[in-house]
Parts: sequence; C-alpha cells; structure tokens
Amino acid sequence: MRTSIATVCLSGTLASKLHACASAGFDGVEIFEPDLVAAPESPEEIRALAGRLGLTLDLYQPLRDVEGVDEEQFAAVLRRAEAKFALMRRLGMDLVLCCSNVSTATIDDDDVSAAQLRRLGELAQRYGVRIAYEALAWGRFVSDYRRAWEIVRRAGHPAVGMCLDSFHILSRGYDPVGIERIPGDRIFFVQLADAPLLSLDVLSWSRHHRLFPGEGGFDLVGFTGHVLRAGYRGPLSLEVFNDTFRQTDVEATARHARRSLRWLEDGVARADDLGESASVAMLSDSAAPSGVDFVELKAEDASAVEAVLVAAGFTARGHHRTKPVALWTAGSARVVVNEQHARGLAPHLAAVGFEVDDADAMTRRADELLAPRVHRRTYAAEQRLDGAVAPDGTEVFWSQAPDAGEPDWVAEFEHGEEPVTGPIVGVDHVSLTQPWQVFDEATLFYTSMFGLHEESSTEVASPSGLVRSRVMASPDGRIRIPLNVAPPIIAQRGAQSGLPQHVAFACTDVVAVAQQARTRGLVLLRIPDNYYADLAARTDLPEERIALFRSLGIVYDRAGDAEYLQFYTSTIGQVFFEFVERCGGYDGYGAGNAPVRLTAQGVQDSHEAVRVGTPG
Amino acid sequence: MRTSIATVCLSGTLASKLHACASAGFDGVEIFEPDLVAAPESPEEIRALAGRLGLTLDLYQPLRDVEGVDEEQFAAVLRRAEAKFALMRRLGMDLVLCCSNVSTATIDDDDVSAAQLRRLGELAQRYGVRIAYEALAWGRFVSDYRRAWEIVRRAGHPAVGMCLDSFHILSRGYDPVGIERIPGDRIFFVQLADAPLLSLDVLSWSRHHRLFPGEGGFDLVGFTGHVLRAGYRGPLSLEVFNDTFRQTDVEATARHARRSLRWLEDGVARADDLGESASVAMLSDSAAPSGVDFVELKAEDASAVEAVLVAAGFTARGHHRTKPVALWTAGSARVVVNEQHARGLAPHLAAVGFEVDDADAMTRRADELLAPRVHRRTYAAEQRLDGAVAPDGTEVFWSQAPDAGEPDWVAEFEHGEEPVTGPIVGVDHVSLTQPWQVFDEATLFYTSMFGLHEESSTEVASPSGLVRSRVMASPDGRIRIPLNVAPPIIAQRGAQSGLPQHVAFACTDVVAVAQQARTRGLVLLRIPDNYYADLAARTDLPEERIALFRSLGIVYDRAGDAEYLQFYTSTIGQVFFEFVERCGGYDGYGAGNAPVRLTAQGVQDSHEAVRVGTPG
Repeated sequence: MRTSIATVCLSGTLASKLHACASAGFDGVEIFEPDLVAAPESPEEIRALAGRLGLTLDLYQPLRDVEGVDEEQFAAVLRRAEAKFALMRRLGMDLVLCCSNVSTATIDDDDVSAAQLRRLGELAQRYGVRIAYEALAWGRFVSDYRRAWEIVRRAGHPAVGMCLDSFHILSRGYDPVGIERIPGDRIFFVQLADAPLLSLDVLSWSRHHRLFPGEGGFDLVGFTGHVLRAGYRGPLSLEVFNDTFRQTDVEATARHARRSLRWLEDGVARADDLGESASVAMLSDSAAPSGVDFVELKAEDASAVEAVLVAAGFTARGHHRTKPVALWTAGSARVVVNEQHARGLAPHLAAVGFEVDDADAMTRRADELLAPRVHRRTYAAEQRLDGAVAPDGTEVFWSQAPDAGEPDWVAEFEHGEEPVTGPIVGVDHVSLTQPWQVFDEATLFYTSMFGLHEESSTEVASPSGLVRSRVMASPDGRIRIPLNVAPPIIAQRGAQSGLPQHVAFACTDVVAVAQQARTRGLVLLRIPDNYYADLAARTDLPEERIALFRSLGIVYDRAGDAEYLQFYTSTIGQVFFEFVERCGGYDGYGAGNAPVRLTAQGVQDSHEAVRVGTPG
Repeated sequence: MRTSIATVCLSGTLASKLHACASAGFDGVEIFEPDLVAAPESPEEIRALAGRLGLTLDLYQPLRDVEGVDEEQFAAVLRRAEAKFALMRRLGMDLVLCCSNVSTATIDDDDVSAAQLRRLGELAQRYGVRIAYEALAWGRFVSDYRRAWEIVRRAGHPAVGMCLDSFHILSRGYDPVGIERIPGDRIFFVQLADAPLLSLDVLSWSRHHRLFPGEGGFDLVGFTGHVLRAGYRGPLSLEVFNDTFRQTDVEATARHARRSLRWLEDGVARADDLGESASVAMLSDSAAPSGVDFVELKAEDASAVEAVLVAAGFTARGHHRTKPVALWTAGSARVVVNEQHARGLAPHLAAVGFEVDDADAMTRRADELLAPRVHRRTYAAEQRLDGAVAPDGTEVFWSQAPDAGEPDWVAEFEHGEEPVTGPIVGVDHVSLTQPWQVFDEATLFYTSMFGLHEESSTEVASPSGLVRSRVMASPDGRIRIPLNVAPPIIAQRGAQSGLPQHVAFACTDVVAVAQQARTRGLVLLRIPDNYYADLAARTDLPEERIALFRSLGIVYDRAGDAEYLQFYTSTIGQVFFEFVERCGGYDGYGAGNAPVRLTAQGVQDSHEAVRVGTPG
C-alpha cells in the first residue's frame, strides 16, 4: 500500500515536515491548509520541494461547511472553493477533503446536499480536482459515513467521492463493515487514526487524543481490511491530532508514524486473505521473546550495585575478556554490570536483552520497522548481539535462546565463581521510567518489535504527583515491562532526582531471600508501621505473619487466593532492585503498595538511606 | 467559617502537608488515609504535630463500600471499621467519611443500607466517632445526595449524618437547593471543589480535574449559600483531586487553596443575607481596575526595546530621578524601561500597573488574600506603589487612578520631551506567558484580587504544539490579560526560547502607525503571502485593501461587521509589541491569526529578523 500522512500530525514548519516525511519513507502527504497559509514558501515552491523529495501531495484539507446551506450561502461556498481549487492547481494537487457541515447547515435534506456536492464537483472538475466527502463524527446533520455515502451516491458525479476516517467511524461505534458496500473506486481517500477508549466529548477526543495505529483501542486491522475488501487501493494516510506529537521532534515522530503503518500493514496481511492486488506486506516473522537474557546496569563506579548483588545472594561470574564489564547471576537472572564509557554516570539501567527464537528474523524486522539500531563493539569469538534503542533511550538487545542452560556469551566472562541454586530464580519484570512524550511511542515500539501487548494500565499516587504506569507483556507473561511516567515537575528535574527504574527478581521464597539479605547487611527500603496496621485492618492475615513481614520490610498483595510478596532495596543512583514471590497464579504488580514504596523512597532521599543493619 | 483541606490536595509527605496547611492559615485538615498509611510517623506523632501546629484533624477519609451488602460482607465491614475507629482514637479524631458503595453493593434497598449505617454508627459511637455518609457521583446504587439523606434519616442514629461534596452534587447536575431541607445538625461535613465543565466520565473528571473554588465552572457561592442556610456551621473543607496541584510546591499550593476559600467566603457574604451566625467575612472592597497605569520592561540593556518604541512613535519622557529607569509614552500607554538589577536579563515584561479607585483598600485586600507582596524601593516625594507577585512571577502593582490626565508619578521622570497626540492611544491588552503549573492559580489570582473574569478561552496551533490561552478581563473591558501556556516541551527549554510575552497597544489608525513605523525602519514580523491569498479567498475585502495590508504586514479578523487589524514587531528577548485597531465593537484578539504569527516568529528565530526596511 502507498502511505501518506497529514502534515498536522507533526511539529515544525511545512518545509521541515516534508523533509521528515520523506526521510521516514512516506510516499505522500496531506497538506493541512493552516500549515500552507502560515508557510513563507509559495505554493510553487512547496510543489517543487515535494517533487524533489519524491513525495506526492495527496490531499488538500479541509474545505468546511459546504453543503446543506441556502442558496446565498452556497454562492459564497462556490466562490471560496474556486479560490482553493485554483490554489490546488498551483500546488499540482487533485484531491480535496470536504467535511460534513458543522456550523452553517440549515437544510437537513440528502437531496439538497447531494445537489450542492454535485455543483461543487462540476466546479472542481474544471480545475482537475476531485472532492472527497467525509462525515465528521460531530457533523450537524451528517455524522455517519453511511449517510455520507448516500449523499455521494445521489450526487452521482465522477468528481465527488468519499473520504473514510477511522476515527469518525469507530469513535461513534458505527459498524465499519458497511464500508464493503461502497464501490472501491468511489472511496477517494482513507485516513487512519487510533485512539484510547475515552468517555470524552468526541470533538475534544478527536482534536487532542488521537494516536497512531497500534497505540490505542480501535481495531484498525479490521477497519483497514474492510477498506481493502471494498476495493480501495489509494494511500493509507495517517491523520492524528495529538497534543504530544505536535511537539515532539519532527524527524523522530515521522519515523514513529511510518512504523505504525508498517505494523498495521503486517496485521492486515496476516488477518485477511486479500490477494495479491492489495499488496500489503508482512514483516519478517518473529515470535515474542521467550525470556529475559540479561539486564545491564551502567555506572562510572558500580561498586554500590555490586555490594547489593552480593548481599542479595548473587554469584560473581567474573569479568569480560575485553571490556570492563562484570556478570552476576542468580538462577536465570543475569545482571551485566558495565563501567565502560560511563564517565559521570550514576548507576542506571542501560539495557535489557531478550531471548528470541530467530535472532536474524528479529534483526530484519527491526530494520523493516525503522528501529534505530544500537552499535555494540564485538570481537572475534564473541557472540554477535543486535539491538535497537527504545524511545526512552534504553538499549534492547535480542539473541538466540539457548536450547538449554546458560547462553554461550556467559563463557566470555572469566575468573568467576560457579553458579549455585538459591531462592532467586530469574527476572520477573523490568520497570522503565519513560519521559511522558515517548509513552505512546514506547507502546508501539514493544508491540510492533516484540509482539508484546498492553497487559494493564494504572495510576499510582506518589508524594510528587501521579505516576502513570502501563505494563507491556508477552502472551505467556515471561516478558513483563512496566513503563512508568513520572509526574512532569519531577521529570523536569532530570533522571537523577526523578522516578527510579527497577529490576524485579522472581523468588521461590522471598522471605528466605530477605532474611539472608538482612543477615548480610543489605540496605532495604523502610516500610512504615502504619502500613502493617492497615494490612491487619484490611486482611485476615495471622498476626505472626504480619510481624514477620514487618521485621523484613515485606509488603503484601492479594487477588482472590493468589498472593504477592515484595521487598525493595534502597535506590542506588537511578535504580533499585525488588524481590518478588508470586503465589497461586498472582498476575499483578502490587500496585496498591506502590504509593507506600514511593513515599518511603522520597523519605529515603531526604533522610539518607536507613540501614536495616545486621542483627546483633 | 472554619476552613479545612484534605491532605490529598497537596504534594509531599503527611508531615510536610500539615506544616504547609498551618502556615497558610487553615484551621484544620482532613486526613486522607493513604497519606497516613505511607507516613513514617505514628498516629500519636501526627496527632501531636497537628496539635503543636494548631490544626484540628477534622475528618478521616474514606471508609468505602460499607452499606448495601449481605450479612457476611457486613461482618467484614464491621471488623475493618472497628480497626479504623481504634486508629482514629489514637489520632484523636471523631469524624469519618463513609462513601456510598461503589463495588460490593448487591442490595438496592434504602432500609437495608439504613440499618447497616445504624449498626456502623452504634459501633462508631463506642469509640466516640461519628460517620459522615456521602453519595459518590458514581455510587453503585446511591449517587444522589437526596437519596443519601433519606438513608441517613432512616438510620436515625445520632452518630450517622451527611457529608456533602460540591463535586458529587454539581457534576451530576443535581439541584443543590434540596440541601436546605436537611437539618443543619445532620450535615456533619462539607467538602468543596470546583471543576471545569467537561464532558468526561465523572470518575476521571473527579479524580484528575477538580479545581479550587473560583477556578472552574461550578457555582460554589450558590452551593455554599444552601449549606449555610441549612444551618451547617462546621468547617468548609477543600477536597480537590488535581494532577497539577499534587505536584506543585506544597507551601505555595496550600496558600493558593486558602486564597480560594477566602474568595469564596467573600462571595457568599455578598450574595446572601445569612445573618451574623454564619460568620462569613467580606474582603476589603475593591472595584476592578479602571485602566492600565503602566507596563514595565526590564533588561540589562534595553536599547533594542527603546529603538522599537522610538520607531513606533512613542515619546521619550525622560529618566527617573533616582533609578536607571526611563519612561516612554504614547497616548495613555506608559512604558517603563528598567535597567536596574537586571544583570544578564534579556528584555522581558516584568510588571504591570493597574489604576484603581482605592489603592489602600486594594492593599488590604491583597493581604487578606495572602498575596505575596512586592517590595519596591521608594524615596521621599516619590509615589508609593504597592504590588503583588502573580503566580507566573510578574509583578502587578496598583495605584490611585488620577482624576484626569497623567498620574503624579510621571513627574518623577526628568529631561524628557513633551507628549504629543498620535494614533497610539493606550494599552489594549497585555499577554503573559504562564508556566502550565500555575495556569489555574493565575485565574484565581486575577479573579480574587482584581475582580477580573475569564472572558474567553481558546487553543492555538503553533509549530511547536498547541498554545492554551485564557483571557482575564475586567467587566468594562479596560483591563485585558490573555494568559498563554506554552506547549510543555518548548516551555522546558526556558523562557528565552519559549513563547514570548507581548504588549498590544490600542490605535485609532493602525495603518498610519504601521506606515510611520515602516518609514522609521521598524523591524516588523513578516507575514507570508499565502496568508493574504487565503484572506482573499475567505473574505470579500477589496483587492487594494488586501494589498495595503500585505505591504505593511497587517493581519485581519472580522466578527459580523466588527473588524480587527493587527501588526507585530519582531521579538526582542522574550517580548514583542503588537499594534491593534478595533472597529465596530470587535471584542476578540484575532485568534485565527495567531498560528500565522507563531509560525512567523519561529521562522524569525531560525533565520534572524527580517528587516522590512525603509523605502528607497
């Protein structure tokens, strides 16, 4: 399919938008009129620039309030439209979007509207222009695409056809299957937008909260299937009004947008048997990762991290043959501690590695999805490691899952100790702090690249504001990545004083881990007594069990008969560790305990770490 | 009236919240349970701290899902409630909020709910506790305060009464007049929150978008009148869930909150004849300002500002007797250019002066409203000038309006030229750029201090994102302050590269001003040709008039028969000037032209100022 994007989706000037769309690989653009009106370049210059960049100018938008009006008003419409058709000739454009009338319509009669569209079509035809009529979800009389089609049908003019916009159809809950009853050659244009499922007036929802396909709650794979089955073969074009994307870097956002269409096309190709003519291409196949290969922490001086790992019961597996990098393991949890190229950096989570079934296919898929690739220096006899930079800057690597046991790269570490079996068995989840402006892009990144899905979404109160959290997980739950957005004022203070990242390790017996760690003098996060008083009030846990939890700083959650036990280390730089035990199929993250944890972390920041201390 | 505030309104730890509420002058607080649960202090410590600070602990909140349940569930409710009542005894508290059941109710029967509340009341009474039952707007069966009252009435127990929350009543559109039919001594507590009028599901609206009284669209003066007429004499308490206030500085937000109650009390006192017993106090009377006394620009080197003022036709009125400050005037527009204490500062709008009827009353009012006062050094024989710091940091002064002619302080400037009469006649409006986190506080500041009101609200697309704009105006329109919020990503880059402020001067003949300015070589903002092509397409303006506008960079708006003409200087530091002419009663700000202006300003930033140049 050809791809296009409305200039209104992006930040910057019209010229910079054209450059960005071309570099992201779009075939064409919709020109949003206010972008042209504000541009210093003449229409001829814009036309020439698009030509040089290899972009087609697919749709001029929008012409508003044209139909359902009285004759006097319609005369003014024709006058205004003619000026725009002349302008389009200068731009070399042949398709204009006409939205259903919102503000001036007084005549609620399909025949009147059809006759007016026909007259507009006759005028347009003289300029070599065609009209794509679209039902706005908040149109005065016409808000349903099926009614718009009836009007277009009655207009019966070759220069008058339909524009279908997924938002206007799906936001109102109209069944998109009716699209298949419209002849494909009468669908002049298709605009795509996803959106979160909000209970908000449809105009505000549309103007501020649209998302790129794959980021919201609409079934755009299904929608696009209907469009293609109707026989439409024009461009699939993104029209996404979003307050954030209007601000973010134009080049990055254009690539992000293009990725969403690539993901959509793959979904359509897999879902439907549309035949050759639809020319929708699949991405290189890649199943969701089967596990976490490693997590990497980076710091100029990582001693504090290593001290925690020792105390928690990790085994030092030695240092890398060629790099100032150490490996620590516990069960299948592998923590790479990296001091290379880390001058001035406090400890932070720099990378995550996934185990995949076909690393080469994954690499091809990453390229097809325009993912920015990571360079990692490797030497002969070292395992190749491909990776991409996630929107928040975290490096995400993938490598072939070993048939059994540890992956080959572990052998690159020397002078280490033998692994032992203990109560820590692997990585449960990896929580990444997201700048607010990449939150939705990150969703698409993990969905399209790794086949993760949004498992749950919540908001957690912290002393510095609400933290938004969204968990991306693989179908079998072996990969769990909670993405957390800090409240903006905290986020502005920079990563150091913002919301920390964390790695949660899965344990078979978290009480044993906590007891051992305490014996070894590990600094744990202090949980207030009030928490345990509340726990006693709201559960029927035996007193002794609560006393045990209190003595170890363990917090508790329950869902039905399933239980979740957690404890936290103090924060080191920008990261802390969590140790968790899931019992009886518990599938959450103890969100109810997060406010207590966040408050305790804030208190820790201001009073220095409270050392639990070795018992006397 | 006694005042109170829920700790959930504020950022920080429970202890820091108590300190902030006490310094802002609140009489008491509501303790939000999660704040206590997360606090390291024991209940006894919190009680003692509140005691030392002179704060009463008015309401413990909330106890959820207590009524409308089966017997087995109710047994668990009693168990949980008893633990909380015991906790309240440790806190020295005697009132708890019970919300109507949201999640566990299965029995939709007022008699069952009443019986359960009565049993809960009996238990509470044994701990010296009373229960305030509240209908949540999204309660499963009970969402209307009138039904909640019927249940409380049937419960017929002295320890069971009502909590009324303005949000839960007004958000659902329930008529608050029914409050007056509830005996005052059965209303145990009143919570107040304002909110913008949104079409959003009521739960999200309540949890994220509540505002302090005076900042939203609810009639809280009317609401509070009903409460007082019912005979309620307990505290008026703020419960405002707001994503921003949860992040902002706790001390400043507590003062801001307290100011909102002071404003509300004044409104109630003026609206109603409630008699002595209600003890609501008016603020010192102060009519809205009658005009702009001056605007003050500050910079280490203000030469560029002065060059623009010269070219625009302002008269240099000399320099101040004691300070490195110059005065420029045109008509009644007075621009003070200040180079004192400005090291390193680029030109920016530092202060605005208002003319008021009674400057002393205004000063008293400012103090009553806890406005942070400005210190301005004055010497003998200089006019005293009182002022306050607006939430965005702009200094706002007030002084006695002169009976006629120029104010006395003009005489403090020496060696100037005589004023001349020209086409610039005064200040039309002053646009102030607001950090997003003080936008609502700024509304309340201008409303409560100066009697301005929100005249209009809009959003304007810029190349860097949407700019939110809200105009605060005096009833007669002589004071107009558009408050603009930059898109967050731009705002983070700091004032220098963010959204500029501006002063708009009113002209009787803006074409003449532009022509003169052009003759004198003033650098104007370049408006693209595409704008004028679009203007021709969408209006019936004669070609010559459009050509004249184009030659001068004048942009145009029309509303009915009223017209608005504007042109802009280039930006100097963080500020630019605008010259406007209102014809036929035009009452807007040319919002439709703002995207073109914002784009041109962005282009100017990247290509340096384009000099219109003196004609040959």
